[in-house]
Amino acid sequence: MVTTQAGLGRIEGGAIALLDTPFPHIGAVLEQEGSLLSLASRAVCRRVSFDEVTLRAPLGRPRAVWGVGLNFESKAARTGRELPEQPILYLAASSAVTETGAQVMFPQTVTEPDYEGEIAVVVGRRLYQAGESEIWPAIAGITAANDMTARDVMRTTGVPALAKSYPGFTPLGPSLRTLDDLGDRDAIRVRTRVNGELLQDDTSAGMIFPIPDLLSRLSWFTALEPGDVVLTGTPAGTGQDRACFLADGDEIRVEVDGVLPLVTRVVRPA
Amino acid sequence: MVTTQAGLGRIEGGAIALLDTPFPHIGAVLEQEGSLLSLASRAVCRRVSFDEVTLRAPLGRPRAVWGVGLNFESKAARTGRELPEQPILYLAASSAVTETGAQVMFPQTVTEPDYEGEIAVVVGRRLYQAGESEIWPAIAGITAANDMTARDVMRTTGVPALAKSYPGFTPLGPSLRTLDDLGDRDAIRVRTRVNGELLQDDTSAGMIFPIPDLLSRLSWFTALEPGDVVLTGTPAGTGQDRACFLADGDEIRVEVDGVLPLVTRVVRPA
Repeated sequence: MVTTQAGLGRIEGGAIALLDTPFPHIGAVLEQEGSLLSLASRAVCRRVSFDEVTLRAPLGRPRAVWGVGLNFESKAARTGRELPEQPILYLAASSAVTETGAQVMFPQTVTEPDYEGEIAVVVGRRLYQAGESEIWPAIAGITAANDMTARDVMRTTGVPALAKSYPGFTPLGPSLRTLDDLGDRDAIRVRTRVNGELLQDDTSAGMIFPIPDLLSRLSWFTALEPGDVVLTGTPAGTGQDRACFLADGDEIRVEVDGVLPLVTRVVRPA
Repeated sequence: MVTTQAGLGRIEGGAIALLDTPFPHIGAVLEQEGSLLSLASRAVCRRVSFDEVTLRAPLGRPRAVWGVGLNFESKAARTGRELPEQPILYLAASSAVTETGAQVMFPQTVTEPDYEGEIAVVVGRRLYQAGESEIWPAIAGITAANDMTARDVMRTTGVPALAKSYPGFTPLGPSLRTLDDLGDRDAIRVRTRVNGELLQDDTSAGMIFPIPDLLSRLSWFTALEPGDVVLTGTPAGTGQDRACFLADGDEIRVEVDGVLPLVTRVVRPA
């Protein structure tokens, strides 16, 4: 599923079937209907090629974007940090969410901007104090995220909500992959390329708190509602791991199994 | 302005003038129009008494609820903490927002549930890297908030987003007071009563980071969008200050100048 400037669409082969529905984005369908089932019966208005549409952030501006620090064994091994006993959970401001193809302007004050390729989980049904077995049935689908972080702000404030909430810092999408055609749910691949170079490559099998465990634990503190997003952590290979940060003109590409690539371009004022 | 089960209304004398508008809540007006100006020209459908309607959360579920730790001199003095040099900013999950009159169920796992009466600021126009002089003109109005906190969860996790995001932990409203009839913007009074006893009583003149300073500082890290909410801190007199926490049946009443009282009842499972 994709959100385009011409409405909601279903990816069929190499084209997009635009659906006859008044919803502005997939998030609105989830918030109002609690599932995407009704879209299956919507008539197709027309079929268009990818060139004919602009892909938008699939969920518009969500009402919650949760994230987790240090959730990949590869990242812990690379950085020499101990495995956490509890997930390190945070909220980022959803005003930071943007679409694929966006140019993201880093403020001059940010000295160490970094990327984090991640698998984003989109909630389909309310989850509160839920067990692990209840998680997958309540998930509407997955998409890609680039959970960009100002490492310098993280170091000086210690507050993820401040280091990750600048406008454009959370590219999300572009397509939502539903679970019916997802192969191995326990080994979803995520890769990040910067200017074409592969810098992150791992699967969710390497998560310290796998998706059902992570969302179950989170749900003991808060209710996850339809359309809410949980970013599930980034594997080894961010700029932080080699003290090399993003520069003007860099292109970041996050690829998640079965999701269209999420491309972001960085603009830094001189 | 109020949001009711019968639509949006304007408080006139002791009654509510219900307006002819399709918006489900005041937050939707702000998100779509960036101001409440259009409501002034809406026809009045009918006038009703307060008894005839149910007051809802004025903004529905906002897309951001920011908060700040230790922002009142009275609170710092009572607790012996030093004044912070920067505001201690956090996000809470907006799925915790509820309406006046709500019964809030505390999970059994929460051992130290506490209230925090606060002035909530509702953003009317986008604010990003804004100076102090730009803040008041961009604010749509103020309302009351009870920024409830599980002190035990705060102590064990250190994460405000986890200690403040249980369902119902953020009662908000019920009325939005616009700024045109607000007397002294720099001394807005906030009071909290628990079971009738006055336990918090202060004004925004006692803030360490006054509202324009607070929102300006926050806007250097993130964009505040129309409909977003900033909770501006709680004065001395929470349960924490005397190690006395909320119990089954307690009624908390937060009163902010010119805003209808925000009443919450606590339910604790045996």
